[in-house]
Order: sequence, then C-alpha cells, then structure tokens
Amino acid sequence: MIAIRLARPGDGQALWQTTRALAESHDHLDAFVATPVDFEQALFSPSPLIGALVATWNGELAGTAIWQRSFSSFRGKETMYLEDLSVLPPFRKRGIGRALLREVAKVAVSRNIPGVAWLVMDWNDKARGLYEKIGAEIEPGHCFCRLHGDALKALAA
Amino acid sequence: MIAIRLARPGDGQALWQTTRALAESHDHLDAFVATPVDFEQALFSPSPLIGALVATWNGELAGTAIWQRSFSSFRGKETMYLEDLSVLPPFRKRGIGRALLREVAKVAVSRNIPGVAWLVMDWNDKARGLYEKIGAEIEPGHCFCRLHGDALKALAA
Repeated sequence: MIAIRLARPGDGQALWQTTRALAESHDHLDAFVATPVDFEQALFSPSPLIGALVATWNGELAGTAIWQRSFSSFRGKETMYLEDLSVLPPFRKRGIGRALLREVAKVAVSRNIPGVAWLVMDWNDKARGLYEKIGAEIEPGHCFCRLHGDALKALAA
Repeated sequence: MIAIRLARPGDGQALWQTTRALAESHDHLDAFVATPVDFEQALFSPSPLIGALVATWNGELAGTAIWQRSFSSFRGKETMYLEDLSVLPPFRKRGIGRALLREVAKVAVSRNIPGVAWLVMDWNDKARGLYEKIGAEIEPGHCFCRLHGDALKALAA
C-alpha cells in the first residue's frame, strides 16, 4: 500500500504540503514562508540543492523525505543531509517514516554516496529509537547555531 | 595583516591543508581521506556543492571557512551551512576566526541569503562565547545522527 518514488517536476506542491504540516506540528507555522515554486526550483534547477522522495498510501500523498546535497570535507565526497522526514498526521504509525529512510539509504548506495546525516532533538526518544534500530550512530551534545535577520546584517556591516 | 578572499581555482590544496589540520586537532585523522582535487571539484564543478573563503596573514595561509550550499524548507530559500571554520595552529588567537565569520556574513548578505547555520559541541564554551558575541542564536539539545558503511548498505539491501 506504500509506494515511494523520487520527486519529479510538479511535486513542489506535495513537498510544500508535507513540510508545512511539519512546521504546523512543531508549532512553527509563523516561520514557514516557503512556496511550492521554491521547492520546484531547489529540486529541478540546473544546479539542484536538494533531492526528495515522495511516499503515497493507496495513491494518496502520505509523506516526503527531503535531503540537502552535502559534502564531507573529511571524505571529500558528496553526502546527503536529511533535512526533513515528514509523514502526514493521518498516515502515521504505518511504517512510512522507516520506509522513507530505507529508500533514502537506497538512493545513497545507488549514487555511491558514503553516508547520510541528520539531527534529532535529544528528548525525542521515539525518533531516536527508530534511528538506532536502522543502525545510525547517534552523537548527543550538539548545539544548533543560527545567524540571521538583523544580527546577520550587523555582522556584515 | 589579515586578508580574506573567496576561494578560487587552485585553492583546493589550501582547503585540504586547513581541513586536514582540523581533523588532526580533533584527533580524527583516521577518518580524513579527502584530496585537494576533491575540494576543487566540489567548489568549481558546474553544480558546486560548497563555497569557501581563504584567510591569509601577511600572505601566508592562515585559515579557511567552508560552507555547504543549503536550502531552508521553511523559508524556501538557499541558505548557508557552515561546515568547517579552520584556523591553522600558528595563527590562532589573532581574530582570524571572527574575521572569517564576518566575511561569511558579508557573502550571505551580498547573495540575498537569509541565514547561516552551523553546529557546535555544547562543552565548547570558547566557541559558544564567540558565536554569542556575533549575535548567533544557540539552541542546545541536538544529536547528530550518521548512517554509513555496513549499516547504510544493510538498510538499503
């Protein structure tokens, strides 16, 4: 009943929808200003920044995985940084998150990409449990730093 | 005495050198397999994955900043993810790290990029102090997850 495929032109709307749902469930809708066209451009420009998978359940949009095309300065190779793994609320608890992770791994192996990385909050035991089960190494103790808005402009001035 | 410029073709060697020094000072040389050519390709392919700045002190290589071209799925815009900020040991404590961060901010503003993000270990008070001083928001409580090697292949199988 689950089907997963690489995003194709026209999927910007689906990715916008799942990412918006993610922002909503994290209570961050105020920060969500992306448009479907933004996703189309990031995926299908001549120099794509991201890649994505779309999961459907009996043909209905159920979830997506979005990764950054990344680079390991230690390995000197392209890697994948998983930005969002989103399963729409009505489709949760059906193994769709895990199925998406498995397809991400398949994409990595098929493209000769040596690793996939992502972040998880340390209090999120459920997610951590899934990531441990699929064999991920989990290293706690990181802070996420962000410079934007007025602070970014002030530093650049 | 400090001069900072965008990386240009031929700088792969300098980036290799500073990143290798970073791996060495973190006791991770065993994981460092990148070559100067890897950096050239990631920077100057038709679809570059990274960007970089090179800092010199009286003409000598002193440090580098390397960022991933990234994408915020909430903003729908290209962003910068700072992968490595490296100052070679003989050049530390001269403000080169801060000067590199300032130039990174200038690159962001000049390219209409809304934000720069990076990670820091929560025990690294010195780095955190600098990041706070330049106006970064610092959010603790993240775990870094990595899937690679046999575990990646097993999930993909």
